[in-house]
Amino acid sequence: MWVIIVYDINEKRVAKVLKYLRRYLNWIQNSVFEGELTYAELKKVKSGLKRLMNTQEDSVIIFSSSLSNDYKKEIIGLDKAKETQIL
Amino acid sequence: MWVIIVYDINEKRVAKVLKYLRRYLNWIQNSVFEGELTYAELKKVKSGLKRLMNTQEDSVIIFSSSLSNDYKKEIIGLDKAKETQIL
Repeated sequence: MWVIIVYDINEKRVAKVLKYLRRYLNWIQNSVFEGELTYAELKKVKSGLKRLMNTQEDSVIIFSSSLSNDYKKEIIGLDKAKETQIL
Repeated sequence: MWVIIVYDINEKRVAKVLKYLRRYLNWIQNSVFEGELTYAELKKVKSGLKRLMNTQEDSVIIFSSSLSNDYKKEIIGLDKAKETQIL
């Protein structure tokens, strides 16, 4: 399953969310991750995010599609994933 | 066609990009738009973005899928689109 996660997280918590998501998905732009997950992995990521977030202040949107090869991805300008090697 | 646009734009230019994209898509979170476009509209939006951006500094990623009803969208925490009425 193809997944995109975008988030708007309070700066007190965002580093932990970034670190957590990097274990499962690819960072492609500020506050944007993308990648392939199984249903079980996605379930796990959701509960992990809920633990790290404050759901009264923070916002996460998860797009998923079972037809992974159907979507198209185009980059205009910088490819931040290539530009920025996250250590 | 279902489209998600995420962007990382220099603050000198970001207000113009925000205003431009609101004419075609729905703002759903900081630097994230979503909506339905025809091929012609998407082509128009891409060239409009290129005019507004500095492709050496800024980054736009466009996800599109012809199977609009296949994708799933889940929000954890705040639904920023509802929270924030952009005037």
